[in-house]
Amino acid sequence: MQERYEDSYLYRLRHSAAHLMAQAVTELYPGAKLSIGPPVENGFYYDIDFPTPIAESDLALIEGKMKELCKLDQRIERMEVSREEARKLILDDTIPGMGEAVAEYKLQLLDAIPEGETLSFYNQQRTDREGTLHRFLDLCRGPHVDSTKEIKHVKLMSIAGAYWRGNVKNKQLTRIYGTAFESKEDLEGYLERLEEAKRRDHRILGKELGLFMFSARVGTGLPLWLPKGAQLRMTMTDFLNHEQMKRGYKPVATPHLANVKLFEVSGHVYNYREKMFPFMEDDEKETYVLKPMNCPFHIEIYRSQMRSYRDLPIRYAEVATVYRYEQSGEVTGILRARGFTQDDAHLFVRPDQLLEEFLGVVDLMQTVLKKLGLTDFRARVGTKDPSSDKYIGHDENWEAATKAIMDACDQKGLEYEVSPGDAAFYGPKLDLVIKDALGREWQMGTVQVDYNLPERFELEYIAEDGKPHRPIMIHRAPFGSLERMIGLLTEQYAGAFPFWLSPVQIVVLPIADRHNEKAHEIASQLMEEHGYRVEVDDRRETLGKKIRENQLQKVPFMIVLGDRDLENGSIGVRSREDGDLGSMSLADLVAKLKPLE
Amino acid sequence: MQERYEDSYLYRLRHSAAHLMAQAVTELYPGAKLSIGPPVENGFYYDIDFPTPIAESDLALIEGKMKELCKLDQRIERMEVSREEARKLILDDTIPGMGEAVAEYKLQLLDAIPEGETLSFYNQQRTDREGTLHRFLDLCRGPHVDSTKEIKHVKLMSIAGAYWRGNVKNKQLTRIYGTAFESKEDLEGYLERLEEAKRRDHRILGKELGLFMFSARVGTGLPLWLPKGAQLRMTMTDFLNHEQMKRGYKPVATPHLANVKLFEVSGHVYNYREKMFPFMEDDEKETYVLKPMNCPFHIEIYRSQMRSYRDLPIRYAEVATVYRYEQSGEVTGILRARGFTQDDAHLFVRPDQLLEEFLGVVDLMQTVLKKLGLTDFRARVGTKDPSSDKYIGHDENWEAATKAIMDACDQKGLEYEVSPGDAAFYGPKLDLVIKDALGREWQMGTVQVDYNLPERFELEYIAEDGKPHRPIMIHRAPFGSLERMIGLLTEQYAGAFPFWLSPVQIVVLPIADRHNEKAHEIASQLMEEHGYRVEVDDRRETLGKKIRENQLQKVPFMIVLGDRDLENGSIGVRSREDGDLGSMSLADLVAKLKPLE
Repeated sequence: MQERYEDSYLYRLRHSAAHLMAQAVTELYPGAKLSIGPPVENGFYYDIDFPTPIAESDLALIEGKMKELCKLDQRIERMEVSREEARKLILDDTIPGMGEAVAEYKLQLLDAIPEGETLSFYNQQRTDREGTLHRFLDLCRGPHVDSTKEIKHVKLMSIAGAYWRGNVKNKQLTRIYGTAFESKEDLEGYLERLEEAKRRDHRILGKELGLFMFSARVGTGLPLWLPKGAQLRMTMTDFLNHEQMKRGYKPVATPHLANVKLFEVSGHVYNYREKMFPFMEDDEKETYVLKPMNCPFHIEIYRSQMRSYRDLPIRYAEVATVYRYEQSGEVTGILRARGFTQDDAHLFVRPDQLLEEFLGVVDLMQTVLKKLGLTDFRARVGTKDPSSDKYIGHDENWEAATKAIMDACDQKGLEYEVSPGDAAFYGPKLDLVIKDALGREWQMGTVQVDYNLPERFELEYIAEDGKPHRPIMIHRAPFGSLERMIGLLTEQYAGAFPFWLSPVQIVVLPIADRHNEKAHEIASQLMEEHGYRVEVDDRRETLGKKIRENQLQKVPFMIVLGDRDLENGSIGVRSREDGDLGSMSLADLVAKLKPLE
Repeated sequence: MQERYEDSYLYRLRHSAAHLMAQAVTELYPGAKLSIGPPVENGFYYDIDFPTPIAESDLALIEGKMKELCKLDQRIERMEVSREEARKLILDDTIPGMGEAVAEYKLQLLDAIPEGETLSFYNQQRTDREGTLHRFLDLCRGPHVDSTKEIKHVKLMSIAGAYWRGNVKNKQLTRIYGTAFESKEDLEGYLERLEEAKRRDHRILGKELGLFMFSARVGTGLPLWLPKGAQLRMTMTDFLNHEQMKRGYKPVATPHLANVKLFEVSGHVYNYREKMFPFMEDDEKETYVLKPMNCPFHIEIYRSQMRSYRDLPIRYAEVATVYRYEQSGEVTGILRARGFTQDDAHLFVRPDQLLEEFLGVVDLMQTVLKKLGLTDFRARVGTKDPSSDKYIGHDENWEAATKAIMDACDQKGLEYEVSPGDAAFYGPKLDLVIKDALGREWQMGTVQVDYNLPERFELEYIAEDGKPHRPIMIHRAPFGSLERMIGLLTEQYAGAFPFWLSPVQIVVLPIADRHNEKAHEIASQLMEEHGYRVEVDDRRETLGKKIRENQLQKVPFMIVLGDRDLENGSIGVRSREDGDLGSMSLADLVAKLKPLE
């Protein structure tokens, strides 16, 4: 079993780095009031009340001081003290960072520690050449490393505002983020990955590649898809539709709003109200609301006819935009928007069909992720918390459904971990967690069993025994959301989407005006005969500039057309990955492209 | 020039038929109070206050009496009278249909005729064998035919409720609808066309073929598209997208709501408010509204970058559902819904590009209608009303745009009529009116020049002179709306859509269970290799029943599979139009289908 981060040397090292930073700050900024400074996922931070505001450019100074202090090989020692001694230390203005003038937050922290708990300080001290003792003490539970000397590979990253105790009514302190590693290589590797992540940031690439935009007039969290982004959505949707139709899914299309009555029956008005957009009340005393989910609509379609056991499974699919009211502070680009598009489907199945349907769904998800080039993913089965009684539906149904999920994963060779207590109150689920090219994890597609909505809407089918039975519902979305998946794919590929997915697959570059006609002819041929997405860049710019710009746009293939090509009936070809491929016939190029479709 | 209906013999005949019906009613239902009885588009009606309610089944009795009265050859004569004489006649209870007890409505009608106008009655009378005079008089402006004998080809159609003077506060009378023609052939032809229209009614076929549904919980005017209807939408959209991409359109995708700020800039909040859904006000003091139109969104995309004259024309296309708040009484199935899907695009063009863009748009519309099999259509150019000054934009621009529209129609061989005063205040337009298989006209696709929105949003491009200029916008939608076009196509084809458009193109019918495997194999092959939409009907029903049901579902082709087929490697083929086509190879069938794609 892997060591927990909280138990690791790295965690202690980062904690000590936070103390070292605090020491450097107290030496550089007398009057700075310290509050808390814990290690966090990728480093550490410290929240400090500076006498005058500092800027990110000041971090170099602090980092320099830290390196100085590091080399001094200060011993880091734990001291256990009584509450009285602790208070005395905090108010002792002979110690840097202590004293009444700067004790405000530390005193509050001390008072918040329950009576009877052990109180400890960590003391890092040294004696200088003149024999003077320099101390830095911090009220802290620890543990820490042994010497500041160990904190060599440290980097201060950024500053941010942070309210004392996370409460907006309190004073805003300055949070300094930093990180520390055990080796130079580790630190450099981390910084490189960060740089790479920045380079791949879908928000930046989304703008550079013309994928999507926001407009203040349209509103927060409501993306507008530019031509290349809209094309990406269409390509993804067409691919998924095709896979789904092959598997017996049926398309449906439903409105983006409904009378609230629908969401009263579904229960969303009661348990999902805070995520729904404001209601719309009309003059005829009817109230409407934007849909946060598609399920109730698909259910109304199921209910529009009497269903027989022979009709099941019924699989209704809709790529549909839903609207959820996220607080404006929570909205994050296309990753957490107020309008997003689910590749949604609802399966209405008999209990005896659960395993087969799960096999189908797992197979579909594997097919989709493979096609997208996302090969590093793991599954998580969310099961009941055995100690809770919040769940609806019979135990035996839960067991059967959970087993069906696991059996389907086993049969399809999909490894999974079990996450007890992670099920929704209405059924067990299967989540897919994808690891991207930078090793970051994204929770994407999901499959959810539902015993609740069939009950609330009184869904039925006539079984072989001639009597009405209740079907089980499965909600599933292999992409999860188109927006989030496009965000992930953009970062995964740094915008250089695979050929089949690229919004523009080929650009034809005539060198001079006299090559334009042939360029358009070749483009038409590639579009009409082979269905490729082709553009002609016949701007009057130099070939070099046009190649550079199309390379920046990550176009997979460029065709260059000059006099010699017109004479010989050839084309010059450049690939995004391999550069100049030389001269060839159009047929040669098409033969190269076929396997990439 | 064609005679106006109001001046025609047919109009007089129907008016006289209304009087004849009133005479029959007074003879059959003493105490019935007559009100008004005019000719209308396809016949006539009379609003009557019956002493006890009548049912539609009573119409045969009234019609029988009318035929009796018709044969009596009553002369129909005009009598001009003074107001005093008129009142006396209306209150004369020796005349059938007259007298104080039944005079309520006629007296009100008399009082409503302005002083000084000529008052006239039409009198139809006969003397019976015993020499008794029978009279029927009705206060009426006329004119009428000469004798009731002429009203031979008459048919009473239906009854309905109608408030006296159209005011819901007044008493509801019984309106009897009827029609009359000059010849037996004309009447029968009309009744046949009515039957045919009923048989083709998209509301009935929409249900029978599983195209769409409504749900009270979802709400008035918000259609839910069932699998076959959703497939129809996808097929139409895919076809249009393909045609548009070929023509240099770029796809975009925009949200279904926006901050009202957007519609304040566009002006919709001021001049389109009554058609917009209720506003949504959130807790952060922002107000949102569902989009009734896509234009402002596409404009925001245009505005997101500086544009050069070399970038124009820019053509943004989006098949997008918009929401317009129609009063619930005005909602009519999918023809006038509250949510409908426009095949919208906005072209941003330079003035010198108008003609070329119009040529492209007219060509696209012709291509679309031809593919849909709608060959009988005419165009209408809506121009300025020269006497009005409501129009914005310079006269010379209007003239240039109007000329560009007409020149494009001329060059593309599209005949048009000019409709002065039919232009919007912001630009001239081109409408397409389609005549369907029953000769009825549908106003569908439209092209609209717009000088207003570019002004309101201050749109610009940098022209060759290096200065900012204003582009012209063209709004266009070849289908108009997907919903309306599907309504038209359903009635046009009586549900038997052309092969390329049929939601299910081929059904494979295994005769017995042992043929199922081969049936699914053939279906997969047709789907995977040829992209057809194929289903297998492997229900355990007789072949006869399965053929009948799939014929009712208007599936273009059926493949029947039995023992002999498995032995010979052949298939039995039935076509929707031509019935049994006998035995053939799968390749033979595919060869037949190719030209229909």
